[in-house]
Amino acid sequence: MAKELSFLTKRADDYSKWYNELVVKADLAEQADVRGCMVIKPYGMAIWESIQHELDRRFKETGVQNAYFPLLIPKSFLSREAEHVEGFAKECAVVTHYRLKTNETGDGVVVDPAAKLEEELIIRPTSETTIWNTYKKWIHSWRDLPVLCNQWCNVMRWEMRTRLFLRTSEFLWQEGHTAHATREEAEARARQMLDVYADFAAEYMAMPVVRGVKSETERFAGALDTYTIEALMQDGKALQSGTSHFLGQNFGKAFDVTFVDRDNKPQYAWATSWGVSTRLMGALIMTHSDDNGLVLPPRLAPIQVVIIPIYKGDTELDELNEKLGALRDELQAMGVRVKYDNADNKRPGFKFADYELKGVPVRLVMGARDLENGTVELMRRDTLAKETLPVEGIAAHVKILLEKIQTNIYAKAKTFLNEHIFECNDYAEFKERVKEGGFFLCPWDGTTEVEERIKAETQATIRCVPYGVDQTNPGIDMVSGRPATCRVIIARSY
Amino acid sequence: MAKELSFLTKRADDYSKWYNELVVKADLAEQADVRGCMVIKPYGMAIWESIQHELDRRFKETGVQNAYFPLLIPKSFLSREAEHVEGFAKECAVVTHYRLKTNETGDGVVVDPAAKLEEELIIRPTSETTIWNTYKKWIHSWRDLPVLCNQWCNVMRWEMRTRLFLRTSEFLWQEGHTAHATREEAEARARQMLDVYADFAAEYMAMPVVRGVKSETERFAGALDTYTIEALMQDGKALQSGTSHFLGQNFGKAFDVTFVDRDNKPQYAWATSWGVSTRLMGALIMTHSDDNGLVLPPRLAPIQVVIIPIYKGDTELDELNEKLGALRDELQAMGVRVKYDNADNKRPGFKFADYELKGVPVRLVMGARDLENGTVELMRRDTLAKETLPVEGIAAHVKILLEKIQTNIYAKAKTFLNEHIFECNDYAEFKERVKEGGFFLCPWDGTTEVEERIKAETQATIRCVPYGVDQTNPGIDMVSGRPATCRVIIARSY
Repeated sequence: MAKELSFLTKRADDYSKWYNELVVKADLAEQADVRGCMVIKPYGMAIWESIQHELDRRFKETGVQNAYFPLLIPKSFLSREAEHVEGFAKECAVVTHYRLKTNETGDGVVVDPAAKLEEELIIRPTSETTIWNTYKKWIHSWRDLPVLCNQWCNVMRWEMRTRLFLRTSEFLWQEGHTAHATREEAEARARQMLDVYADFAAEYMAMPVVRGVKSETERFAGALDTYTIEALMQDGKALQSGTSHFLGQNFGKAFDVTFVDRDNKPQYAWATSWGVSTRLMGALIMTHSDDNGLVLPPRLAPIQVVIIPIYKGDTELDELNEKLGALRDELQAMGVRVKYDNADNKRPGFKFADYELKGVPVRLVMGARDLENGTVELMRRDTLAKETLPVEGIAAHVKILLEKIQTNIYAKAKTFLNEHIFECNDYAEFKERVKEGGFFLCPWDGTTEVEERIKAETQATIRCVPYGVDQTNPGIDMVSGRPATCRVIIARSY
Repeated sequence: MAKELSFLTKRADDYSKWYNELVVKADLAEQADVRGCMVIKPYGMAIWESIQHELDRRFKETGVQNAYFPLLIPKSFLSREAEHVEGFAKECAVVTHYRLKTNETGDGVVVDPAAKLEEELIIRPTSETTIWNTYKKWIHSWRDLPVLCNQWCNVMRWEMRTRLFLRTSEFLWQEGHTAHATREEAEARARQMLDVYADFAAEYMAMPVVRGVKSETERFAGALDTYTIEALMQDGKALQSGTSHFLGQNFGKAFDVTFVDRDNKPQYAWATSWGVSTRLMGALIMTHSDDNGLVLPPRLAPIQVVIIPIYKGDTELDELNEKLGALRDELQAMGVRVKYDNADNKRPGFKFADYELKGVPVRLVMGARDLENGTVELMRRDTLAKETLPVEGIAAHVKILLEKIQTNIYAKAKTFLNEHIFECNDYAEFKERVKEGGFFLCPWDGTTEVEERIKAETQATIRCVPYGVDQTNPGIDMVSGRPATCRVIIARSY
């Protein structure tokens, strides 16, 4: 789609504006005409599909199967699990009628009042209720367990303030819902899926995350424990990128899902649920991108290499087509996702800027002189470094370089994260420094009172009790002065 | 999920009951608790995913890209294209509110009357309106064309009488929407996508179809031409399995999508749309299956080969695990989708019946005697033929056999289709024979009057004007006695 490329706002000038512009200019998504909803454009969708395929593969490796459950949930289901409805289900789209009819003037449609539903239906904000109502029919004996289902679908939460990918009324996600015979097995599954998310984020998205457990206040409505991966954005804010919930027997009891155990005794089934969403697109953008646009890790990039010819006249183009067409084929045969762009309706400079904006990891350019010299110009998107190389052997070089870029992007993000985790034991200091962003590792007395005060005074929240932190002597709560029960990560967040 | 396997109703006794039972017993889908909606169970979903991946690959080969457009459509969009709303959009789910609140007694939720939407929103029954409203922003110049988008999503049509896969209120589908600079290009794209569907059906689903053009009455609301693939079910009824629409400039005009052409003149964009849905699951079942259950073409089957050990005691099991585990690995390395089922909580007889029900193309069984003799028992699902073969070289044999089964299943369905296409020029004869089912190739005068009379008197409809039929002397309309304009396929249908 032809458009004028104009420079992005710089991150240092206005990070938020930079993000909003980038999402639109890189053709990832745009506002839909329905309030708070988005249109995911083909390039954004290709990235989401890449995320989806790899996650789906990793889920299936752990024995998970996909299924599909209905979009609409009877209103009464929501009140079955008391905490769930209390914490969750109020802001949602309600279907009340099932028919339109032509209006009196014959030029429009109105809702047919005769087609009112007996019970209103809700567009799923999440599907625990409808799925556990179904599991009741599937689960009778310990032999039926575990049930390990996932669905890829759309969900809807009527958000008042929305931002593309980060918070939209409708979004795409996956939600896994498992049922188990024992508490231990369910808890292990909840933790396992968090590890799947964290490994995926690190290995595929090149995005390091902190793993941990949410405080009671920040738990999913209806969960006994919520595990989370928290990523650090370039502006120092946290972005919760995936959660996995140990739901205990809450949904088993609410929907009466019982099974006969090995000793022939009836038991309620144990539950987990876990999900990531198109929010990951926001995390991806704000972890790696720069003032020139997106920076995509090669493993995830829909286009890993773009090849652009620079030519005058048809003879030069023919020669370049031959040479570069062969190079494209060679890269493709090596499993590289490559695009050869010899379109004649855009100038090379426009193409350069556009593929930079779109974060294509490697750009190869060949002009008449290169053709003569047997060279090609290579630019890597992560460092913007250019070099001229012999065209001989370039495919093998690129193949290796893609892995190097993947490693480099991850290392850069990892260094940034490590440099922005601060131990802090003093509340005055915390209040000052938290404005600059970062993850603050602070002693906490475990009370909601302290949690709420921190939030009210600094807009920062307890992101999690992180894994792998020595909790033997957590120290003194920096707010209350009482002995701390643990040290937690506190940060401002998206 | 443990359950009692019981025999299916026989097709000859009650085809409709056989179908309903098979869908549930083979773990494909079940009724949801929301009226008219379905739960697609893991095995059914695996089949749908298989269909989806292959179709998606074929779409992308033609240059199509995926995108995602909102679930909800403002009510007013529907009345923009007059024919579209007239023919289509009345029976749909209407969202009127965006919030629930706790009821007065505190034990349930009610719709918050304060949260009424200014304009009602419709759950998409199809997305032409919302997509063309978006294309207006994407299309300005001939350089922006063509736009070739597809989305995989859920849609909703409030159906009164529903059947699993064949007609459900919510279903999964893909809808492609393309925009073009010329009429010729749009028409060619509509026909191209029909060919993609027909080739996919034949090559992947082993399902022969008749390609053709719909009569005006049967056209999609808003289309100038609807191309269709019609499959013949075992009971002689037609099942429309995919459609592709040439929409002319109707949506371009309704949503004011104009572009500047090469001569710098403004033009309305030309449109197509095309879709297939989870209805294909119904077509798949009713094309191939038998009284023992599903019969799946190998290319599509989520499990192509199941291996079952028969053993007494752990020593035998250990030996079989070693031997058959190696065979599984060998098959997997050849790219065969194989399952080794040594679960000890089900008897072999149960497993045999269950995998037959689920249509797994090849079953390999090994017991103690086979182990001694170096043999394995092979059963092919399409013919139910069993033979004992040397285990040496069995993997290579199976690999070839899978292709043979694919070919055989297609050939069988193709013969059945060919044997049930009848030329018929006499209405009395037609009325009698149409009760037995089949595709009737009959002369038609092109009038809606005849079409309606046939439907009223026989419940049969004009399925299409088929491709590849000589239309030079179509003869005399069998109902009106007037000269026919063409010969059409008439059949009862799902």
